[in-house]
Amino acid sequence: MGNTDFECRQRVSVPPSKPFFESLKSSLKETFFPDDPFRQFKNQPLSRKFLLGLQYFVPILEWAPRYTFDFFKSDVIAGITIASLAVPQGISYASLANLPPIIGLYSSFVPPLVYAMLGSSRDVAVGTVAVASLLISSMLGKEVNPNENPKLYVQLALTATFFAGVFQASLGFLRLGFIVDFLSHATIVGFMGGAATVVCLQQLKGILGLVHFTHGTDLVSVMRSILSQTHEWRWESGVLGCGFLFFLILTRYFIGHLKKGLNPPSLFELAFRSSYLTTAIKTGVITGVIALAEGIAVGRSFAMYKNYHIDGNKEMIAFGMMNIAGSCTSCYLTTGPFSRTAVNFNAGSMLGLIDYEAAIHLWNVDKFDFVVCICAYFGVVFGSVEIGLVIAVVLSLLRVLLFVARPPTIVLRNIPNSMTYRSMDQYPAANNVPGILILQIDAPIYFANASYLRERISRWIDEEDDKLKCSAEIGLQYVILDMTTVGSIDTSGISMLEEVNKNIDRRGLKLVLTNPRSEVMKKLDKSKLVDAIGQEWIYLTVGEAVAACNFMLHTCKSNTKAVESELQDNNV
Amino acid sequence: MGNTDFECRQRVSVPPSKPFFESLKSSLKETFFPDDPFRQFKNQPLSRKFLLGLQYFVPILEWAPRYTFDFFKSDVIAGITIASLAVPQGISYASLANLPPIIGLYSSFVPPLVYAMLGSSRDVAVGTVAVASLLISSMLGKEVNPNENPKLYVQLALTATFFAGVFQASLGFLRLGFIVDFLSHATIVGFMGGAATVVCLQQLKGILGLVHFTHGTDLVSVMRSILSQTHEWRWESGVLGCGFLFFLILTRYFIGHLKKGLNPPSLFELAFRSSYLTTAIKTGVITGVIALAEGIAVGRSFAMYKNYHIDGNKEMIAFGMMNIAGSCTSCYLTTGPFSRTAVNFNAGSMLGLIDYEAAIHLWNVDKFDFVVCICAYFGVVFGSVEIGLVIAVVLSLLRVLLFVARPPTIVLRNIPNSMTYRSMDQYPAANNVPGILILQIDAPIYFANASYLRERISRWIDEEDDKLKCSAEIGLQYVILDMTTVGSIDTSGISMLEEVNKNIDRRGLKLVLTNPRSEVMKKLDKSKLVDAIGQEWIYLTVGEAVAACNFMLHTCKSNTKAVESELQDNNV
Repeated sequence: MGNTDFECRQRVSVPPSKPFFESLKSSLKETFFPDDPFRQFKNQPLSRKFLLGLQYFVPILEWAPRYTFDFFKSDVIAGITIASLAVPQGISYASLANLPPIIGLYSSFVPPLVYAMLGSSRDVAVGTVAVASLLISSMLGKEVNPNENPKLYVQLALTATFFAGVFQASLGFLRLGFIVDFLSHATIVGFMGGAATVVCLQQLKGILGLVHFTHGTDLVSVMRSILSQTHEWRWESGVLGCGFLFFLILTRYFIGHLKKGLNPPSLFELAFRSSYLTTAIKTGVITGVIALAEGIAVGRSFAMYKNYHIDGNKEMIAFGMMNIAGSCTSCYLTTGPFSRTAVNFNAGSMLGLIDYEAAIHLWNVDKFDFVVCICAYFGVVFGSVEIGLVIAVVLSLLRVLLFVARPPTIVLRNIPNSMTYRSMDQYPAANNVPGILILQIDAPIYFANASYLRERISRWIDEEDDKLKCSAEIGLQYVILDMTTVGSIDTSGISMLEEVNKNIDRRGLKLVLTNPRSEVMKKLDKSKLVDAIGQEWIYLTVGEAVAACNFMLHTCKSNTKAVESELQDNNV
Repeated sequence: MGNTDFECRQRVSVPPSKPFFESLKSSLKETFFPDDPFRQFKNQPLSRKFLLGLQYFVPILEWAPRYTFDFFKSDVIAGITIASLAVPQGISYASLANLPPIIGLYSSFVPPLVYAMLGSSRDVAVGTVAVASLLISSMLGKEVNPNENPKLYVQLALTATFFAGVFQASLGFLRLGFIVDFLSHATIVGFMGGAATVVCLQQLKGILGLVHFTHGTDLVSVMRSILSQTHEWRWESGVLGCGFLFFLILTRYFIGHLKKGLNPPSLFELAFRSSYLTTAIKTGVITGVIALAEGIAVGRSFAMYKNYHIDGNKEMIAFGMMNIAGSCTSCYLTTGPFSRTAVNFNAGSMLGLIDYEAAIHLWNVDKFDFVVCICAYFGVVFGSVEIGLVIAVVLSLLRVLLFVARPPTIVLRNIPNSMTYRSMDQYPAANNVPGILILQIDAPIYFANASYLRERISRWIDEEDDKLKCSAEIGLQYVILDMTTVGSIDTSGISMLEEVNKNIDRRGLKLVLTNPRSEVMKKLDKSKLVDAIGQEWIYLTVGEAVAACNFMLHTCKSNTKAVESELQDNNV
């Protein structure tokens, strides 16, 4: 009678194994082409494929034929609006980068044109950004003093822009768009706040009228430099400084005489043979990544809001081409700025970047993200821009690794009046099932957690055993491992399960698996672990497994072993 | 009627939020004290606590009082057996490290004694190991020629051993035992095979009788060095070399005169003031980690087999103390050797380390592990020992990161005659539910995958929508996200879900969540996303969610909106 229940159930079969290269191809596709860009090319004639391909890389070809006079009118209005924001912004950010204001103006002209042709976002307004400007001044400024050697400094900035473009475009061509995702929102919030603080600190030099000032950007160097020169402080300079700041805010639209029209070519300014080439490349790569992260994040947010698609890799190519073209036409690094609201005032915009509300939100929702944000902030303020960035990225990655290295293991209990089993911590009303321990492992089982899980599982069994021994209840007989949440497993994980199975056997208990996923089931089968556990002890749901165990426990408590072997015979 | 079904169900409530420091404490405990070493100290008087603490760090105090003459007899026999293996092994491995054979002999004496007092494994036989010996010779040999300056070389080897010990013990004290887990089994297999190949290649110098030979250890340098000197090859030397190898195998037990008894003190040989101190520290740290990984892996395997516990951190302290003591008594690096079978013959043991059967097993069970193994092998053979190790560790970590960055998303279907929903790929018999798309995300939702998942989910919805539009069936109305397998979420993940919810709303569909886990539910609540989705649209199981959606779809297809708002009023 009881047996028929188990016979008619849906079995967990071993999925047919795919040919190696097919599964390799599909996993490579999901990694590098998650957006499936070839979908539209399917079943098209060759000429159409060529046109689609061209439109894919140069989106202007797609929308230009549909461009009407109405579009043009709204574009003119939008252009004027944005220019009135972007031009002063470009100029003030150029001064952050210690570049002549005219370079900032140039940078507001050519790159947006290039982006209009190649970019896939309709909303991104291209321009220079505060963080990248700061990075350029701090990284290049260490090697070349922009006041003593302005020509070389500008050349290096252009060269760095060129390499930033090359790097961005290559990332796109290599389909490595996902690298940008590793800069989390928390990292960016902390990082920008730190950068803004550093800039404000640097202003103290002028406000206090100090002649000798540290070259370091960190808080300790700056404060030491200021406090060691208290006798040099001048209140006149402070008043003058504040007055001048006010004057600057008023007169910031004054940009000097335009020489030789707009954007002189600067291809021959690129300092490929300079002894500072390494610095330029390093600056280019770092600022390139950060500018990219910012630009793509902005593009994506708008696209999501207006419900259209942005292709990260295509955007990378567009930003890269834009910066290569920019570096040849006297522009420095541009991207799609993160915060258009923080444009107008130099000092004001810097303080606006300290987004304490975002930090409070991080603290409320996720403490670890807050820690990442604060570490990025303090790394920038007390160390340098690069140190802050590295700390934040490493911490973010550590969190991912730590989740895998120390996955939660959860004891499942029965939700009353149902076949559902859930965590006893989350649902206190859930009931214990006597004689059966149900465990759920909440992560893929990899080398990084195999040893931990082995010990953790045996500790759960020990604890349950101890508890049951003290009470008058039935002793522990079955350990059910719910594999629903185990998305993947490697050979170390398989070895771990083999050892757990042997260990449970040795204690005279029985291991039961439920719902192993496709990939896991394949590997369990290949390593013969399915045979070691017994195919009949692998169930589709926890409910079915518990029913089967209960049947064994209660109907035939006296001669379990005999019935077990009979059941096995029936199933084989 | 229908409504009462939904009312009496078990609700997914927001778990009460734990105080911040309590949850921080519990997660730190699970990370650094996964083995719960303080369990036995609970509810004990102070004197007993002190004794237990001493026994914890010096296990010999625990078992010495119970030591009997019977134990002693079996220990003598075991000691003689192991010594007959360990002494020749120690000597031959010392020659791999380019150290005098006598150091190898010394190393077979003191460290086992120290381990016997401090170690927690009853089965580990302490001794020198091939890989660490090789690493010492390759890393120190780059700086100091062991033939030209043998005294300095030995001093540096002892210093490296000292730092290896310090590093190992500090890892244990800092409870960082889990770092060792990041060297996967696949990494070690490939790495040891590569190291063995390198050693065999180096023997070609002697066999071919070449006087000038490359200092590089990689295959390219060695083969270039050999092939560029074909005119120097001597068949006499080859014959002599093979003969000598045979002679060596026969006479390897000859170890020279023992000076000054056993193990002269060597504390003052430690070269802390040498200009090569950095090299010694680097060598110590790298060999220390590898020796530790080996020793703990061996100890764990035995412990698991004989069903007793090994504490990784305690083992680290024991190995560390053993090597610190060893470095002061003329011993070089020792650990619990990985492969006792590969002991007896110098050349033979080296080839035995090329464990091609393990590599075949890796290929069969897990292709990625095979790639890691092969990369470690080729990294060692074509690059250097360090390059091989770094490549393998980085690849292993990349796999973990890639799993999180590109988690599988799965469409769930109904298993016939049940309330169970499973992947349609794994269970082809499962049925589609018209009008409802059920998605499962197989990983924690973190910054690293938030953008990918956002695009992937909207692609699934697009595809399902397209499919349903073509067929005559009911259009897509509900998107159910099964959160069972989402073990954790960060603020980027929450933002992603907010955007997905808005996006689904905008399409006129409804987002339904099922079984969000404790941590996820808390964060959904704190970020107000529970209110945005509606508490009544969060279900405990996929079955319940589908039942509710079906009720809405079929009973009141004509005026869904009206009933929906009514249902909402009932629930609020």
